[in-house]
Amino acid sequence: MDINCLLFDDFETMDLFGPVEVFGKIEEYQIKYFSIEGKVVTSRQNARILTENINDMTSNSIMVIPGGKGTRDLVNNSGFIQKLKDAAEKSSWCLSICTGSALLAKAGLIDGLEATSNKIAFEWVRTNGKHVKWVYKARWATDGKYYTSSGVSAGIDMSLGFVADRFGEKRAQDIAKMIEYQWNCDKHDDIFAL
Amino acid sequence: MDINCLLFDDFETMDLFGPVEVFGKIEEYQIKYFSIEGKVVTSRQNARILTENINDMTSNSIMVIPGGKGTRDLVNNSGFIQKLKDAAEKSSWCLSICTGSALLAKAGLIDGLEATSNKIAFEWVRTNGKHVKWVYKARWATDGKYYTSSGVSAGIDMSLGFVADRFGEKRAQDIAKMIEYQWNCDKHDDIFAL
Repeated sequence: MDINCLLFDDFETMDLFGPVEVFGKIEEYQIKYFSIEGKVVTSRQNARILTENINDMTSNSIMVIPGGKGTRDLVNNSGFIQKLKDAAEKSSWCLSICTGSALLAKAGLIDGLEATSNKIAFEWVRTNGKHVKWVYKARWATDGKYYTSSGVSAGIDMSLGFVADRFGEKRAQDIAKMIEYQWNCDKHDDIFAL
Repeated sequence: MDINCLLFDDFETMDLFGPVEVFGKIEEYQIKYFSIEGKVVTSRQNARILTENINDMTSNSIMVIPGGKGTRDLVNNSGFIQKLKDAAEKSSWCLSICTGSALLAKAGLIDGLEATSNKIAFEWVRTNGKHVKWVYKARWATDGKYYTSSGVSAGIDMSLGFVADRFGEKRAQDIAKMIEYQWNCDKHDDIFAL
């Protein structure tokens, strides 16, 4: 199964590469990197990454959408939001990290669903989806095919949670051990929610 | 000050992008990506990243060396090891993550110094530096200008430790909060050392 990552300029680097690290340990998954135009994308932390065009994204896959400063402009880019919406709708699962959930919200994909986001940017994210059931205190939230995580590192916890939901908790724990990561496995336990 | 990351094919993605996430929050640092030939490098998790040539790396900077499967061949590539050695010697600080310490060891850069590495690959790493004071139980180790971390995620802890050593613990704690990361701030506390 394909893990289809959607990149854009000024995405937050570890939002994406935390989940990529986890999913890279699943032999059944292959990781691919896309953007709207299929060009080189530059992360907020200056990493320049080659991508394929979003039009070539496979259906029935797992879509991963990071957050980051780039989302602030993209919520107002209707062309981008429409392409993200089309890609998310044809995906079997759709995971966002940090302010990536603002993009899902703006596309109307998570109306009526529970979702979360970065704690520092939470109020801004909320303005992008008035019909979303925003959950402030959550390391990550799941509702239907949508998984949304809290800020940056929470994406690693969510990805391990996704693996646990698909393959069982043992496999998630094995991956956490492999990458020497202390997994916060309770999605309700969010120490950064004040 | 420049953060000079040395990439190579089959490097472990989060080995690099965990530290990059931390250092990206320090306005005084700018992050740059290098490789021996200055070409596109492909990580173990399929990320294709543009790099500059290692010959263009600045002196008196902070060098970051990830680990990963690629290190298994590179310890036997004398051309690579010599270039890494030259670059490390002209750096003010040199940080490795996971099996990246095998490369430092092979170059003879950490002979007589304390260093650590990934727990699963520890015995292999040890064979690459018989004169290194290997510390098995350590989230990260510091000795002189060299910082070496344990597996993958430990690189995040070490990077926050490096920030604490340079700018004080408060700044490291602030960054951990910004990226919603539960920092294991005690380098001697290594739950993955069995």
